[in-house]
Amino acid sequence: MSLIRDLSDDEARAALPQKWGSVAPGVIPAYVAEMDFAPAPVVRDVLVDAVRRGVTGYPPNDDLGLGAAFSAFAGRHWGWSPPEKATVVTGDVIGGIHLALDVLCPPGPVVVPLPCYPPFREVVAVAGRELVPVLTDPDAATAGLDLEGLEGAFAGGARTLVLCSPHNPLGRVWTRPELESVRDLTARYGVRVVVDEIHAPLVLPGATFTPYLSVDPTAVLVTSPSKAFNTPGLHAALVVVLDPAEQERLRTVPLPMNNLYSPLGMLAAVAAYTDGDPWVADLVDRLDQQRTLLGKLLAERLPQARMRPLEATYLPWIDLRAYGVDDLAGPALALGLRLAPGQSFQPGLPGHARLNLATSPERLTTIVDRLAASIQAPTP
Amino acid sequence: MSLIRDLSDDEARAALPQKWGSVAPGVIPAYVAEMDFAPAPVVRDVLVDAVRRGVTGYPPNDDLGLGAAFSAFAGRHWGWSPPEKATVVTGDVIGGIHLALDVLCPPGPVVVPLPCYPPFREVVAVAGRELVPVLTDPDAATAGLDLEGLEGAFAGGARTLVLCSPHNPLGRVWTRPELESVRDLTARYGVRVVVDEIHAPLVLPGATFTPYLSVDPTAVLVTSPSKAFNTPGLHAALVVVLDPAEQERLRTVPLPMNNLYSPLGMLAAVAAYTDGDPWVADLVDRLDQQRTLLGKLLAERLPQARMRPLEATYLPWIDLRAYGVDDLAGPALALGLRLAPGQSFQPGLPGHARLNLATSPERLTTIVDRLAASIQAPTP
Ligand SMILES: Cc1ncc(COP(=O)(O)O)c(C=O)c1O
Ligand SMILES: Cc1ncc(COP(=O)(O)O)c(C=O)c1O
Repeated sequence: MSLIRDLSDDEARAALPQKWGSVAPGVIPAYVAEMDFAPAPVVRDVLVDAVRRGVTGYPPNDDLGLGAAFSAFAGRHWGWSPPEKATVVTGDVIGGIHLALDVLCPPGPVVVPLPCYPPFREVVAVAGRELVPVLTDPDAATAGLDLEGLEGAFAGGARTLVLCSPHNPLGRVWTRPELESVRDLTARYGVRVVVDEIHAPLVLPGATFTPYLSVDPTAVLVTSPSKAFNTPGLHAALVVVLDPAEQERLRTVPLPMNNLYSPLGMLAAVAAYTDGDPWVADLVDRLDQQRTLLGKLLAERLPQARMRPLEATYLPWIDLRAYGVDDLAGPALALGLRLAPGQSFQPGLPGHARLNLATSPERLTTIVDRLAASIQAPTP
Repeated sequence: MSLIRDLSDDEARAALPQKWGSVAPGVIPAYVAEMDFAPAPVVRDVLVDAVRRGVTGYPPNDDLGLGAAFSAFAGRHWGWSPPEKATVVTGDVIGGIHLALDVLCPPGPVVVPLPCYPPFREVVAVAGRELVPVLTDPDAATAGLDLEGLEGAFAGGARTLVLCSPHNPLGRVWTRPELESVRDLTARYGVRVVVDEIHAPLVLPGATFTPYLSVDPTAVLVTSPSKAFNTPGLHAALVVVLDPAEQERLRTVPLPMNNLYSPLGMLAAVAAYTDGDPWVADLVDRLDQQRTLLGKLLAERLPQARMRPLEATYLPWIDLRAYGVDDLAGPALALGLRLAPGQSFQPGLPGHARLNLATSPERLTTIVDRLAASIQAPTP
């Protein structure tokens, strides 16, 4: 029996205050990256035990075994293991990128390929850096990295690249040759790569994940089990660098630069990486089924929609320009569907939407129904 | 029966990974501000229920009632209630001070009276501000605020004052007239006050707490139930400002400036402020007994030690200069006691130590035994 259990609407509202608390009753939230599944038992059990014991105080000076647990998980899943000591704990992935920019990255502008997870743009600004966006051609046969665009940005002075791998919202799993091209190009310009691999455990059948550090050991990896285990509110993420001097610099920053990780998050992360393989296997299986269902539903109801092949994540990226629509968020919401508009990932990009298929087959069917209806509906 | 239950050493090690995980077996940790007590049942029950339900996702857009709960708590305890909407949620008090400095405070240097909770100095630096320390005379009959020193700093261009009220490590509860003097002086120079009232629920019998916002409604209050309820690892704190435009500015900062609060922390905070009065009453009672015991023990074993009257907090500030000692942390640790050296609160201040009396009477007795022994011991 699968470990994945669908939450009822009531259970989802009680569990997910952001996703389900931000929509009116009757609206299906398919925008934010949270899954409508009951918690992984291994994580839940560790948390219940910890809060009973009173683990509500400050985080420890050591990492409670998180570096070792991640290293073993990476070895089992991707055949690559960083040293235990390479992991430095932080509060979340965006905070980890902030820390990397402040402590490890050369001065100068920061390149972010668009579309991107919106806080990527914000964190660059909050870190006081200039943002250099490099657009991905929405009409390309394969949604790839624009190496020429990247080279132009580096030639213009940018010295940091924030790379999302696997990519949200494009759903791409970069191939090893693609990552090697990034490594070679960034090496030529002395550009530091900060890679966000939070979606790596969610690579679906058909694609193979390559840890970027296994291609470019000079990069900074930021990751967390929080996407695969639905635990972003617990606050524990990992910054992984292979240079011991840099590990030391990260470990000795002033407390206010890195104190918002929690012992509960750390315990949950250790449990997830150590005992979570069966959950990940069942989850990937389930997401694969949802992917198939979504393909079928789109082919039936919205045959001109172009869904980018979803190689990883539960966040399909859908091009609806063929229907002549611009921004669908308003009409969809009026019909009971909250989706993530393409514009929030790439300002000015018309006719795209990101959905969330980590829900029940019934809800996914309703999601596509409402999406299709909103395309017919007049703009409100 | 009191709600306060002492943790055994084993229970404390299982509950408090920072405090008890940072010392070797046999050493009593009396340095960091955590209490060796079992969690408040009202908080623990809410947390167990929440993690069972799977509340591990992103925090909500609303505040889950935290502003209303704090307002009611403040009304019951201090006869003063800010509007519900005045509260903006953040991850912790130090993060809240950071946010206040970035978003609300005028440019220019920031005054911090010393001694201070060490991260006060760090957060000023991390926020990119110049720090202007104003020393408190260690020989003053009453440990007060040096108004002349403050005025000098303001005359020199400082435009923000970070005030700790009640004061850690001095143990002072500022009187209303003292706070009025601060208000009048800062108003004269156009200085914004950021006040940290995290210790306010821990005012001990004999002193009366005055919320600074009730004296100076232009100030920024930062607080949290995390000291009184031993929950600093859950990550929920409050920034309270009375100006609606400023509330709005705080609520609309880019996500990476304020996303590290947790739904679990918010639920725990609501429970603490709503149903935690019996716990606070028993806690204050117990801390009062410990204060009496400590006074007795010091009078017996270290009659020349000068303990500042502990009007609030569980963190007594002790002057041991009469024994001709400088820094006691090393010798005390060698004898099984980890204390907080005075130097960490005020660089260069000799012969002071901060202890932590929120533990069992037996441990407190051993703490004073070891402190006394370390004064006799040769410097290692
Ligand atoms: C690519 C990517 N990075 C980071 C995050 C958020 O991670 P965190 O909550 O740890 O900052 C997300 C969330 O969806 C994401 O898709
Ligand atoms: C005065 C004061 N402010 C803030 C804190 C820490 O609060 P937080 O963990 O919420 O940053 C402490 C901890 O002891 C403290 O004494």
